[in-house]
Amino acid sequence: MKIDFNNSTTLRVRYSETDQMGYCYYGNYAQYFEVGRVEALRSIGMSYKSLEDRGIMLPVSDFQVTYKTPAKYDDQLTIQTKIIELKGARLIFNYTITNKQNKLIATSSTTLVFVSKETMRPIAPPKDFLNLISAFEITA
Amino acid sequence: MKIDFNNSTTLRVRYSETDQMGYCYYGNYAQYFEVGRVEALRSIGMSYKSLEDRGIMLPVSDFQVTYKTPAKYDDQLTIQTKIIELKGARLIFNYTITNKQNKLIATSSTTLVFVSKETMRPIAPPKDFLNLISAFEITA
Amino acid sequence: MKIDFNNSTTLRVRYSETDQMGYCYYGNYAQYFEVGRVEALRSIGMSYKSLEDRGIMLPVSDFQVTYKTPAKYDDQLTIQTKIIELKGARLIFNYTITNKQNKLIATSSTTLVFVSKETMRPIAPPKDFLNLISAFEITA
Amino acid sequence: MKIDFNNSTTLRVRYSETDQMGYCYYGNYAQYFEVGRVEALRSIGMSYKSLEDRGIMLPVSDFQVTYKTPAKYDDQLTIQTKIIELKGARLIFNYTITNKQNKLIATSSTTLVFVSKETMRPIAPPKDFLNLISAFEITA
Repeated sequence: MKIDFNNSTTLRVRYSETDQMGYCYYGNYAQYFEVGRVEALRSIGMSYKSLEDRGIMLPVSDFQVTYKTPAKYDDQLTIQTKIIELKGARLIFNYTITNKQNKLIATSSTTLVFVSKETMRPIAPPKDFLNLISAFEITA
Repeated sequence: MKIDFNNSTTLRVRYSETDQMGYCYYGNYAQYFEVGRVEALRSIGMSYKSLEDRGIMLPVSDFQVTYKTPAKYDDQLTIQTKIIELKGARLIFNYTITNKQNKLIATSSTTLVFVSKETMRPIAPPKDFLNLISAFEITA
Repeated sequence: MKIDFNNSTTLRVRYSETDQMGYCYYGNYAQYFEVGRVEALRSIGMSYKSLEDRGIMLPVSDFQVTYKTPAKYDDQLTIQTKIIELKGARLIFNYTITNKQNKLIATSSTTLVFVSKETMRPIAPPKDFLNLISAFEITA
Repeated sequence: MKIDFNNSTTLRVRYSETDQMGYCYYGNYAQYFEVGRVEALRSIGMSYKSLEDRGIMLPVSDFQVTYKTPAKYDDQLTIQTKIIELKGARLIFNYTITNKQNKLIATSSTTLVFVSKETMRPIAPPKDFLNLISAFEITA
């Protein structure tokens, strides 16, 4: 199912997230995309925390990022998160990060998989999530 | 019970652990002390992992660190870990970090508490740990 | 100079900041206190970033934290930051972290030192900072 | 220039690197690949630190990772690092991570760019690096 859902959230680059290049360390963007995902899910009424409380996890299976302009300490970043597809147990997110001057910092894509905590195997997304996300299905 | 146990382990400062001051970020030392602790326990025959597998956790309740000289990227650090006391459920570690030039980087102390995973309450240290650590008891 | 300055800021525990105990990792609180400090300084009109741009750094020389109740994933935390003293080049901050239920998560204290980027030696705090902070001096 | 260079290094998953899923957090692999890279370069006689000391940086421009099996706390991981191509200012690394049971944990690829610290623009790789890496050129 193709999806067209958008959410945007902001955060500041913390001192701890810089490295001696004076940039935000390339590995820390994974945290920013996670924040983007969690806030995107929250905005459609789905708390990731409550999902885990029900025994459902969403680990990342694929992660790709292209770094365009270095983010720097104290930069206020906007993370634009798109949910673009649900394919069986897999949920695909795209992201862009921009700074206050609207300069593109990074683009990214992640694939997440609905997994049962008990069996550690992929499972169908829960009904309530399907209901919530279906509202954003692209129907040709 | 007063204890006199020493262990030393080495690691390198990773790029991710630097900040834009060009120093190792002050918050990352907590990881180094954790590595020191884990290797100290392993050296007396106690794997922290196996402790958790048995339902026993060792969270930190107090942490104090004094920064003497900044550690820098790629520095090879020696973490000297001492277990100095077992007081009921509480286990006290002291640490020093030095670099290759034997310069003192930091000193630290942590208090850890044996906690049951099930009840989340302090518990007596397990028998096998007591046996292992008693070998290092200071008897006046 | 004794100071009575308070600021409070909030943040959420990120997934990346949890550990397999299901708690916020003890080393990550250092980042939270840093966020508290930076926002406290910003609130009196002093950007830490601009301080570094002028060649002045504020590394931490002493850090002490007591963990009271574990913070958990997605918890919304309030970091209460107090500046309590300026002693030559040293600036002392105290902190408390509470969760939404107003439960005490942690208390902490840090000493920071004004340092010249060029000489890497302690220096007097800049005039504009002194002016800003003097407004909060405790006069018996 | 196509290159066939291999290096392997090992590390243990730290407690701080786990998350509440009980896995190594997906964003922390970036640090492991960085360790792999740095040790690969060191093994051909090129210290990344010395490169930066000469005013040359190697930021990451593209990063892709596929997660196969979750790494867990205290797992001893082997990071296999391959340098596969030098294309102008761009250096391409491939990686695999395996655990002690030789199970595939993750595969990854990164593109790094030689950049001048002064101009912040891409530059030709330094002569000494070219000499060192040429020894591993694939000549059809």
